[in-house]
Amino acid sequence: MQRFNGRRRVVIEHVRPEIEEGMFAAKRVAGEDLLVRADIFTDGHDLIQARLHFRPLGEEKWEIHPMKALPNDLWEARVVPESPGEYEYTLDAWVDHFSTVLHGIHKKLDAGQDISVDLLIAASVLRSTASRAGAEGISEQAASLLLETAAELEKGLSPKQGLALLEDPRLQRAVHACPDPELITTYPRILRLYVERPKALYSTWYELFPRSWSPEPDKHGTLRDVARLLPEIAKMGFDVLYLPPIHPIGRSNRKGKNNATEAQPGDPGSPWAIGAEEGGHTALHPELGTWDDFDELVARARSHDLEIALDLAYQCAPDHPYVRDHPDWFQWRPDGTVQYAENPPKKYQDVLPFHFETHDWEALWQELADVVRFWINKGILIFRVDNPHTKPFAFWHWLIATIRKEHPDVIFLAEAFTRPRIMGRLGKLGFSQSYTYFTWRNTKYELTEYMTELTRTDMRDYFRPNFWPNTPDILPEYLQYGGRPAFVIRLILAATLSSSYGIYGPAFELCVAEAVPGKEEYLHSEKYECRQWNWDQPGNLKELITRVNRIRRNHVALQRTDNLQFVPVNNDSIISYLKYSADGEDTLLVVVTLDPFQPQTGQLNLPMEELGLAEGRPFLLFDELTGERFIWQSRYPILALNPHSLPARILSLKRTMKREQDFDYFL
Amino acid sequence: MQRFNGRRRVVIEHVRPEIEEGMFAAKRVAGEDLLVRADIFTDGHDLIQARLHFRPLGEEKWEIHPMKALPNDLWEARVVPESPGEYEYTLDAWVDHFSTVLHGIHKKLDAGQDISVDLLIAASVLRSTASRAGAEGISEQAASLLLETAAELEKGLSPKQGLALLEDPRLQRAVHACPDPELITTYPRILRLYVERPKALYSTWYELFPRSWSPEPDKHGTLRDVARLLPEIAKMGFDVLYLPPIHPIGRSNRKGKNNATEAQPGDPGSPWAIGAEEGGHTALHPELGTWDDFDELVARARSHDLEIALDLAYQCAPDHPYVRDHPDWFQWRPDGTVQYAENPPKKYQDVLPFHFETHDWEALWQELADVVRFWINKGILIFRVDNPHTKPFAFWHWLIATIRKEHPDVIFLAEAFTRPRIMGRLGKLGFSQSYTYFTWRNTKYELTEYMTELTRTDMRDYFRPNFWPNTPDILPEYLQYGGRPAFVIRLILAATLSSSYGIYGPAFELCVAEAVPGKEEYLHSEKYECRQWNWDQPGNLKELITRVNRIRRNHVALQRTDNLQFVPVNNDSIISYLKYSADGEDTLLVVVTLDPFQPQTGQLNLPMEELGLAEGRPFLLFDELTGERFIWQSRYPILALNPHSLPARILSLKRTMKREQDFDYFL
Repeated sequence: MQRFNGRRRVVIEHVRPEIEEGMFAAKRVAGEDLLVRADIFTDGHDLIQARLHFRPLGEEKWEIHPMKALPNDLWEARVVPESPGEYEYTLDAWVDHFSTVLHGIHKKLDAGQDISVDLLIAASVLRSTASRAGAEGISEQAASLLLETAAELEKGLSPKQGLALLEDPRLQRAVHACPDPELITTYPRILRLYVERPKALYSTWYELFPRSWSPEPDKHGTLRDVARLLPEIAKMGFDVLYLPPIHPIGRSNRKGKNNATEAQPGDPGSPWAIGAEEGGHTALHPELGTWDDFDELVARARSHDLEIALDLAYQCAPDHPYVRDHPDWFQWRPDGTVQYAENPPKKYQDVLPFHFETHDWEALWQELADVVRFWINKGILIFRVDNPHTKPFAFWHWLIATIRKEHPDVIFLAEAFTRPRIMGRLGKLGFSQSYTYFTWRNTKYELTEYMTELTRTDMRDYFRPNFWPNTPDILPEYLQYGGRPAFVIRLILAATLSSSYGIYGPAFELCVAEAVPGKEEYLHSEKYECRQWNWDQPGNLKELITRVNRIRRNHVALQRTDNLQFVPVNNDSIISYLKYSADGEDTLLVVVTLDPFQPQTGQLNLPMEELGLAEGRPFLLFDELTGERFIWQSRYPILALNPHSLPARILSLKRTMKREQDFDYFL
Repeated sequence: MQRFNGRRRVVIEHVRPEIEEGMFAAKRVAGEDLLVRADIFTDGHDLIQARLHFRPLGEEKWEIHPMKALPNDLWEARVVPESPGEYEYTLDAWVDHFSTVLHGIHKKLDAGQDISVDLLIAASVLRSTASRAGAEGISEQAASLLLETAAELEKGLSPKQGLALLEDPRLQRAVHACPDPELITTYPRILRLYVERPKALYSTWYELFPRSWSPEPDKHGTLRDVARLLPEIAKMGFDVLYLPPIHPIGRSNRKGKNNATEAQPGDPGSPWAIGAEEGGHTALHPELGTWDDFDELVARARSHDLEIALDLAYQCAPDHPYVRDHPDWFQWRPDGTVQYAENPPKKYQDVLPFHFETHDWEALWQELADVVRFWINKGILIFRVDNPHTKPFAFWHWLIATIRKEHPDVIFLAEAFTRPRIMGRLGKLGFSQSYTYFTWRNTKYELTEYMTELTRTDMRDYFRPNFWPNTPDILPEYLQYGGRPAFVIRLILAATLSSSYGIYGPAFELCVAEAVPGKEEYLHSEKYECRQWNWDQPGNLKELITRVNRIRRNHVALQRTDNLQFVPVNNDSIISYLKYSADGEDTLLVVVTLDPFQPQTGQLNLPMEELGLAEGRPFLLFDELTGERFIWQSRYPILALNPHSLPARILSLKRTMKREQDFDYFL
């Protein structure tokens, strides 16, 4: 019978969040609440108590949080970890004989029944509780209270006197602090929570290729050129500037313009073909500048509240020093060459993958961790990880855990555009943020389904989306055919549906739509050549981006992703949703047309009760994009959106609900 | 790095069925298939293999079943355990380098690329596989094949010759039988399956109170009286005859008629108040007869293919011998009395619950198991367990596991009408069947939701429903107000929606509808008095029950519960569903009105393609209830149902799909 603990009657089931039976940590950021829920119940009619135990990893003492009972045997407790790092949590629960007796006494009194024996039973529960006082760390004072109350009850009190004693909150606290350890059910697993800094949840990314930003035509851009752009990027409201790899680019098998198999003289090659005689993953591409330039860039970015994010692309050009120094880290073919990346019939001869099945895998893992450490020491705390799904999952699990132990502030973004289970696994094993399918979700049905999956399933606990309408690898069809309105629509959707989003610029804000025919790839891609951009070209979206990012900064409702509620609209070309802050103080109603060509009109169906609005009473809305004001009085407002003028409205309901005097002014 | 197995690249996630991380066994009956599914994937583009390992508990050797890949990284394998008992299963998976190389060769050949180096790579994969031959138990012969093929490939063959060698099925079998154990991912848990005899899934129950069946008025019925009823019960098509407790009934605090607190002289008391000076849970109530009568009843039932099921009600009347012999098994109050069952303000002074928190719990558990063993020795293999939710879950888990080790054929039915999590837990921990909420699910919405939960969620793997339209405790409102049609409707729903169902007779087939005013309880309940019944009363449902149970017996489609598909009907008062056998040979279309008062007409929308029917071509249906035939040709047939004549149709589509000559006869 050892497996069975006959006297422990409470069952704790279905604890959430719990990722893969606790193998992985749930995710939060500092200041974000963790709501722990579980199904907890016992046999029969007895009342129970349940507690959440919570502590930072490494602390011995648990913080105890009483759980609250909801209908249907659901229990919950909420904690708000204030600082980054790893935490642990678990639950326990027990049959609460004291409350059961007290509850029975109330019901008997209501039915006019005698309770004198019940008062004696209560006394005996108090005595047995007091007898554990020493062992359980209950105070002398509390123990005395228990014993004194028991003695009083045993004197034979009136129902009223007895009840008054039993309902003393101090007494109840003393009882609940001291359950019988023999009868407590403890959840068998200790679960983990990883708390990151707030930027892991709320971040606004801008990606550019430094080599395209020389002020002189036909000259290779530098890190100093990038430093000049910082004020403008910061003004647009971005807080992360992500640079593709800045390391020496391989010469052997270098790719030419438009991904040509053979490079022409002067072609710069792909930055992802990392490594040459000048060095590998810890070296700077000489044409970009010096270490001083790099340090200057990082420092100046910081002064603009911008963080530089680097690319972590674990692969080598054939002339990377690793190939010479660590031949065991690559797969050698019978013809004496190293296996390059291929997905037949495609060949990527400029890129050699690491052979992660090597017997020397531990040394390889350590070296790759050292690459991250190197850049952390250079002031980089954000890494966009290239194609993590082509390296073993166990490696990332180890790498992220190892780096985070040393530097809890490091953020990793997974650039995996692959199958759902794989995207999910990368989230579970620890990536702070992930690229998503948003890039190809264009219709109301697609967006609603996808957002529901991200925010209403357990993905919410392990997968933090970062929405990119474009990347250097992807110019989606929608942007190719939809013209400038398509860019505006996708920007507003990305920026308001996800608390983290990013654009690859200036291709995005200049509405560049020229693709390789039949593909979703940029023609004249910066991946293979240096470009020249006129950042102030007419029709650019910089002003709109600035406005949208300012709205994100001013509205906490846009700084998390799971606080989303869709609003029905009777037109499938218009999507609408509410974003709200935890305290309800900040509520935004977003309405966006998904048709980049024709004006569309739709009628909404607002959840008035949840919004605290009364049907028939006017309420005020402020359009954060245009500054316009509206008075509505119906739950069924009609909105017309013209993609060529303003394809969206971001309406704040906040002030109307809080400042009734606004009404007087208008009415 | 110990936690990380750097070279094992495959991930196995979300294995189903898996009940509470493998703490509990999934359920099947002998001959029922177990479909095991999991999400399995690796990094990059390599191909993988996965296997299901399956074995009876106690065997050392695993049966190996290769798994099949479905879209979206879902893998599955199916096994059909043929005999009752406990089984184990787990999974493993690995990167299949051989198939990856072969796949690449095909793609390169399609693209006109050279494959000479790839053939050499294939050869080296074969050599390394052969090097493990001894350790992995691969045959000498297979190892030679691997080495010979490698040697051939190394000679420099033409693409065609090389490919021919690699595609030899014997070679592929040899390779797949011998994966590198260093690189295999094994699922970390061994999961369990409990296989019961078929009656655990498909059973038809009849409940009666023996004491009401004396042929002479005012005489206590006996087991011999019950024996006389067996042919009639068997003829109606029942295969389980369940008797409420047949033990001595306590005298102290005995309940009177209609649950009166004080019994009048001659009142027989509730059979659930178990135990008196004549004995307790292993004694026979003297007025029911002798042990010989009991043995005779069990034997004669068996000769009619009927099994006797007994009630397992773990509670005691105050005069039960346990109270004297094992005072520690009860809770004593400060006034020197034993705590009786109460749920204030209600008191059940005739019933003392066991005190499962007693320090003597191990002896109590053993004694309660001995009660089961006693009745097993008397030939009883089916137990209907009274109120299992008022005894600890761990006790049932232990009891059922313990008894099953000795007697795999024992079936336990959980009589718990309580909250969903608790019902679920009892299913998980091992009850073969469970009472359900069907008793109160009357509308199409309610029935559809509930059946979807039972058959389309993981409940399907641990909760086997047994549908009861009535019980001695419950005369539902629908039966109270709906008249005879309500009884017909509920019978057909129970018998066709669930492969196990039961009725409490003869109250059911006599359409007894008289309730305690304002309650769902029978007036003059047999729980508290002996009744007299006229079983052949006009309007009784015995003929209909006979027909419905014969249809169940003739149609395997009705012998499991999860093979259900609802058919849309444009009238919320009519419900329709398909039941189909695994091989599709047996398909029934059931249509039932839920309105016991007014005729209703509805138009169905049949899933023609899934049924193998073509729109516009006639198809034939046979009404199993009436013997009528129908020809339909549209997916939108219209049906009229009159509750006062025939509230349902059970239409067989089987013969039309298989025997096309039926068409010729009609057309």
